[in-house]
Amino acid sequence: MPRLPCEKILAPWRPRKPGKGRTLDLADYDPDARPFLKGDTPEGKKQVERLAQEIDALQDLFYADRRHKLLVILQGTDASGKDGTIRHILARTSPLGVRAVGWRAPTAVERDHDYLWRIHRQVPGAGEIVVFNRSHYEDVLVPVVNGEIGGEETRRRFAQINDFERMLTETGTTVLKFLLHISSEEQRERLQARLDDPRKNWKLVPDDLTVRERWGDYQKAYGALLAATSTPWAPWTIVPANSKTHRNLMIATVVRDTLQSLGLRYPPADPAVAGLRIA
Amino acid sequence: MPRLPCEKILAPWRPRKPGKGRTLDLADYDPDARPFLKGDTPEGKKQVERLAQEIDALQDLFYADRRHKLLVILQGTDASGKDGTIRHILARTSPLGVRAVGWRAPTAVERDHDYLWRIHRQVPGAGEIVVFNRSHYEDVLVPVVNGEIGGEETRRRFAQINDFERMLTETGTTVLKFLLHISSEEQRERLQARLDDPRKNWKLVPDDLTVRERWGDYQKAYGALLAATSTPWAPWTIVPANSKTHRNLMIATVVRDTLQSLGLRYPPADPAVAGLRIA
Repeated sequence: MPRLPCEKILAPWRPRKPGKGRTLDLADYDPDARPFLKGDTPEGKKQVERLAQEIDALQDLFYADRRHKLLVILQGTDASGKDGTIRHILARTSPLGVRAVGWRAPTAVERDHDYLWRIHRQVPGAGEIVVFNRSHYEDVLVPVVNGEIGGEETRRRFAQINDFERMLTETGTTVLKFLLHISSEEQRERLQARLDDPRKNWKLVPDDLTVRERWGDYQKAYGALLAATSTPWAPWTIVPANSKTHRNLMIATVVRDTLQSLGLRYPPADPAVAGLRIA
Repeated sequence: MPRLPCEKILAPWRPRKPGKGRTLDLADYDPDARPFLKGDTPEGKKQVERLAQEIDALQDLFYADRRHKLLVILQGTDASGKDGTIRHILARTSPLGVRAVGWRAPTAVERDHDYLWRIHRQVPGAGEIVVFNRSHYEDVLVPVVNGEIGGEETRRRFAQINDFERMLTETGTTVLKFLLHISSEEQRERLQARLDDPRKNWKLVPDDLTVRERWGDYQKAYGALLAATSTPWAPWTIVPANSKTHRNLMIATVVRDTLQSLGLRYPPADPAVAGLRIA
């Protein structure tokens, strides 16, 4: 990971390694914080819009350059704002070279393979930006909370994921991982809005409410995951996300800074045609 | 295909069946025409921007609705504006539910299969809009111009393509096919700009100039293709594309009108949770 201009504001939002015998507690990170939002919300929204335009220009260059690959992983509970983030951060870019992958429960064929099999097929190619809406991290959350895998298997998966991500970064992929961190009360309000607003009904399935009942277990599983898989090559960023504008601003800033740090350039003309006049 | 509000302006730009023993001649369609551009270019650009916002709102609904699939196929010579169209038409939509597929020469594995194999894997799923930048139509252009397949095989492929597209439409996919039609002189200017502008060098490979030398052969192959594969279920639209603004305006209008014609709606709440208060 290159050092970014925003690294200093970011530092407190990188998962801190818990002391010996302790676990990372998400409650230590305030979901109402707004470290990236200096002014008021309307001003923040304008900044997000400007960042989206900067990201568009940089993505154009990224696509032409073809020396890099970028994988953005968004994790978070239901209604934490994963879809909204994708919409706001990448609202200005062309679909050429930008791909969003929404991960759902694995199909029968996918379950017949290891859990990284379907993930590997969808990682970005040269010049491509891919955003994962959920990811392989669901495989160290859902089965953990449901008691389908124990501590030993969970630790084995953490190591497998770290190895997989190291291979990706060593072969030219920048991996950005964001946990969209909201409070239980914020989730309640957003899910209620999905029930009350006919335009949002489709976003809620009954199972979301069953999952919400296990809020504490999921927060605990997230804590373990963040501590175990925040690596030098692919660190996590905990994004205070009760404010949607702050969430967009923070993630857009990291994405913009990351793209800027790559030293992107337009490839030169093929020597075979450089300077030619076309008939 | 549902009847669209713009159908009347569109009618002269649907390929006309050539008379017996004759072939469709693209020279009969003026690439400088601007049937969709009533005012001047700056006004047209504003209209494109408004249409992009309308398409964004409709795509959101399309994604939620999940009863339809939309495949937009863009064909045209090098520098006819396929990338630019995607950028302008879909500049406002979220990557969630919108996917662009750029087709290049088939890989070794792809060549080991029939030519529709790789295409079929990339068609849209429920609620998804997919744009093909080039498509299976390259397989009735390149091998025809290069003399790799004869008339009989070409006619067989036309029929296979028509059957394939009918199956897609019968199973819920709307297929929109646009030929971006520019003049030889317009292509010369645009390719020259790619050579002269360092930010555009990467868009031109030496092979593009070899292909340009066979301009007449490609126009002829396009004529045969348009006549043979413009079907009631998946008609072609010839887009006069010397004016980029006209091109964007025409295609955006057809896409907007098509989405509007589908009677999209937000799905209702699951009865199991409707009216619930969340704790």
